Amino acid sequence: LYIAEEDVGRFKEGSFHGEYVTENGEKRLKLDDIVGETDGIGVENLRGSGLIAGETSAAYEDAFTLSYVTGRSVGIGAYINRLAQRVIQMANGPIILTGFSALNKLLGKEVYVSQDQLGGPQIMLPNGVSHLLASDDQDGVEKILRWLSYVPKTANDASSMGPSTDPVDRDIAFKVPSTPYDPRHMLAGATAADGSFETGFFDQGSFTEYLADWGKSVVVGRAKLGGIPMGVIAVETRLSECRIPADPANPDSREAVLAQAGQVWFPDSAFKTAQALADFNNAENLPVMIFANWRGFSGGTRDMYGEVLKFGAYIVDNLRKFTQPVFVYIPPNGELRGGAWVVVDPTINEDMMEMYTDTNARGGILEPPGICDVKFRKPDLLKTMNRLDSKLVQLKSELAIAEESLAEDEAASLRNQISERENQLLPMYVQISHEFADLHDRPGRMKAKGVIRDVVPWERSREYFFHRVRRRLAQDALVKTLKASDAALTHTDAVALLRGWVGEVDWEDDKAMLAALEAPELEANLEGVAVAAAKKSVTDIIAGLSEEQKAELLSSL
Amino acid sequence: LYIAEEDVGRFKEGSFHGEYVTENGEKRLKLDDIVGETDGIGVENLRGSGLIAGETSAAYEDAFTLSYVTGRSVGIGAYINRLAQRVIQMANGPIILTGFSALNKLLGKEVYVSQDQLGGPQIMLPNGVSHLLASDDQDGVEKILRWLSYVPKTANDASSMGPSTDPVDRDIAFKVPSTPYDPRHMLAGATAADGSFETGFFDQGSFTEYLADWGKSVVVGRAKLGGIPMGVIAVETRLSECRIPADPANPDSREAVLAQAGQVWFPDSAFKTAQALADFNNAENLPVMIFANWRGFSGGTRDMYGEVLKFGAYIVDNLRKFTQPVFVYIPPNGELRGGAWVVVDPTINEDMMEMYTDTNARGGILEPPGICDVKFRKPDLLKTMNRLDSKLVQLKSELAIAEESLAEDEAASLRNQISERENQLLPMYVQISHEFADLHDRPGRMKAKGVIRDVVPWERSREYFFHRVRRRLAQDALVKTLKASDAALTHTDAVALLRGWVGEVDWEDDKAMLAALEAPELEANLEGVAVAAAKKSVTDIIAGLSEEQKAELLSSL
Repeated sequence: LYIAEEDVGRFKEGSFHGEYVTENGEKRLKLDDIVGETDGIGVENLRGSGLIAGETSAAYEDAFTLSYVTGRSVGIGAYINRLAQRVIQMANGPIILTGFSALNKLLGKEVYVSQDQLGGPQIMLPNGVSHLLASDDQDGVEKILRWLSYVPKTANDASSMGPSTDPVDRDIAFKVPSTPYDPRHMLAGATAADGSFETGFFDQGSFTEYLADWGKSVVVGRAKLGGIPMGVIAVETRLSECRIPADPANPDSREAVLAQAGQVWFPDSAFKTAQALADFNNAENLPVMIFANWRGFSGGTRDMYGEVLKFGAYIVDNLRKFTQPVFVYIPPNGELRGGAWVVVDPTINEDMMEMYTDTNARGGILEPPGICDVKFRKPDLLKTMNRLDSKLVQLKSELAIAEESLAEDEAASLRNQISERENQLLPMYVQISHEFADLHDRPGRMKAKGVIRDVVPWERSREYFFHRVRRRLAQDALVKTLKASDAALTHTDAVALLRGWVGEVDWEDDKAMLAALEAPELEANLEGVAVAAAKKSVTDIIAGLSEEQKAELLSSL
Repeated sequence: LYIAEEDVGRFKEGSFHGEYVTENGEKRLKLDDIVGETDGIGVENLRGSGLIAGETSAAYEDAFTLSYVTGRSVGIGAYINRLAQRVIQMANGPIILTGFSALNKLLGKEVYVSQDQLGGPQIMLPNGVSHLLASDDQDGVEKILRWLSYVPKTANDASSMGPSTDPVDRDIAFKVPSTPYDPRHMLAGATAADGSFETGFFDQGSFTEYLADWGKSVVVGRAKLGGIPMGVIAVETRLSECRIPADPANPDSREAVLAQAGQVWFPDSAFKTAQALADFNNAENLPVMIFANWRGFSGGTRDMYGEVLKFGAYIVDNLRKFTQPVFVYIPPNGELRGGAWVVVDPTINEDMMEMYTDTNARGGILEPPGICDVKFRKPDLLKTMNRLDSKLVQLKSELAIAEESLAEDEAASLRNQISERENQLLPMYVQISHEFADLHDRPGRMKAKGVIRDVVPWERSREYFFHRVRRRLAQDALVKTLKASDAALTHTDAVALLRGWVGEVDWEDDKAMLAALEAPELEANLEGVAVAAAKKSVTDIIAGLSEEQKAELLSSL
């Protein structure tokens, strides 16, 4: 394209670039590019979008970010939602990258008929981009406010206690069954068969579930314990389903429904666990209860190919970086095995994590049948019953006599009887071996090995953890102050200092310790540490200066 | 299970817990749990594994971590590989969570026949857990050594220049075609049809591809530029395939092959891009070349459900945290559009990122047909041709006369002729409108709008970026020193200081600037900043002390 020579002057200098050519005797400017006279729509907007993207990514780490998608959210708009991570999606607010009609044009046929097919709630809730669905704006605003009720005043504040009408010292009425159950009942309580309400762990009415449609084998939410906002992660014990929608662009595809066993981490539920931890940690500053009840990670071909290792590793990464107390508790009839134990073990972040069990919970590498299959197989079982069963012992001694006296018929019959007796006993001995193995997986052993901090009966766990979380929040606030005064202090150093200061108070008594840690006398100690650290910093800095510089500095003070 | 009273004393105190019961007149200890006399296999091992997991997760961030899987890697072993991220997998080294026979037992049928089905190279290379395949241990060790050749001496060192026999000032012989091509040829060179070797961007023989079987629409690797190790990300322009293996546990499933267009980011290739950035950044300290040539992210139902927003957002997150220089370069015949531009725009991390284009590259929100569909549709085209085409202008004026003189037949004929002329002209005007739109997407406009730093012709880009990366590494090392001396300095502040110190030297001349930044005279300036910062720190600290504390401190110095 060209501009006639006489027209060039009509535009502002720099509005376009090009070079003069002469064609058919006419001098024209052959255009190389058009810049335009004002900032329009183009790369300058993309640059602006890049800036927003970078800032939003950073904001998630140091402020409470929450997107409410009430209308169409397209392209960079969709990315901003995700970069800020927390999303409430209104029923009519699709989150898309490219409009459906543009996609149809690209594909050369009418594949899609709506934006919802691409990024409506039926896509964005099951894949975990949206945390909550709002039916309309009224509902959306309510959900925003409820979410804010769990969030501290500023990103630098810890979770703080609000009013609560549900007494903290009550028993938990809900009995955790040994058969598959809805874990939400454990957290929030449930209505029993007789119509009465059985209370749960958290304050009545305080639990909100998030990311409910994604990775259903794990349940995550926010709730309050005696008015203290907490994050919570619990485990689905029932079979759940993962529905993968059909792809309209591929006529061969159809909806796939994958069954997901209870008490098992799948790629999606591992990712969800890690996502919840990141959300709790980043500016929400929520202490966390993990009701740990996992038999392991799904390790079949489907889930190994599905990157379960990557998402499981995220759990470790996010727990390691967690800055608030995390209480891992194996609930009644719960168990924690092998790899699932490893990714929530407190040694991942000893400053912040503590582990507990109910009196009736299990922890170990393999489940009893598994470990017996490895360590105590059929030959071992036979040896044991031949040692212990008096009838077998007698038959064996009779057989020895028969064999010695070459009474072949009798010996054959005895051998048959022995074999019959063994087969008869076998199921019982298998059961005994499982019971024996199970005795190694009990709370008493976990406590004795020092891998859990305490055994806490479920009925009383509400009061126990209320005092524990209050004490930890008070203690960690002091630790934070100490570390801010003296950057050389580790968490452990700071805790040791506090331990020295509280003197006679029983360190393990959370109620007494809370009072001791809140005592005004500690102020002077804190100031002492700050002054000592200041002196040390000054001495260190001055030691790095030359005599001349030192003298000059000192004279200026 | 019980222990007879007389047997209890045979075991060390604390080996088990229980309570005495009397049954049939016999006093027995009813076992609650068995602790054992020594540390065995159980929760204590899981605790140890947790510690390893946490430390490995942390190690990836501050040391060069690389796992070589030469044998079976199971459970926490598999997790350690992933937590350390970089993995070379030997052909006979499956990475699994649960052995195939244990899974068969769990499933109650013979589903799997080998560990390889679960975590062999045919699973772990296509899903991006393994970065490289080694055919045997010799090959494995060679691949480890080659990887190490890109890594600095320590995690605190920057990428440093090694010897290179490939001259940096040569032209790049490989011509980037406008039709789909193998992007590896751009990086490493290729043998031309006539058998001659056409050199590429990096030093000959220095390019190694990683994660090749995963997310094939993006190519990532490590290479050297004039002996300087760099990370590289490039774009596949050809159609590629993603094969999802059949799930042996589900008889209805079969291998699925998903076609993935060139120049488009899919969930897997977006994740791969982010993974490569994390690997380059964490302790490898590699400056990065991104040969950016993306039309956008795939936004169909399949990929929106497939969490493309999450993985695309990772690219922004990882670029934001990048600590080494990143050069984004749109190659010849390349383009960068919409969302794809946004996630690599330098404003995401202005301290580290710079953007460039070849003389023949495009950048913009939509491609010309797309933008014309929105901004310059058929009515606009007709208006334009009626203004510009002399024949149409004449027909229109004849029509006006005919209509005025009520010559209906003539008018109808003229209207026909106009319509014919318009239809004849339309394709040409569409083409012109596309050309007009395209003039807004050219390097000249990008430069004028300040969204790119420079236009660098492909043939000369090797030398250009060699000097640029050397200069940036020298400059950034000084910035790092300055920031270490004075924590209050931002990157921008430090650069401004340097700019003041180099005086007359042309700031945009990388060769001259390298010499200026390496000049020994700068030492004194650096020391000056350090001393001033030390003085300021001391003054600030002392200002926070009481008069008494201040006096005590000063007397002690």
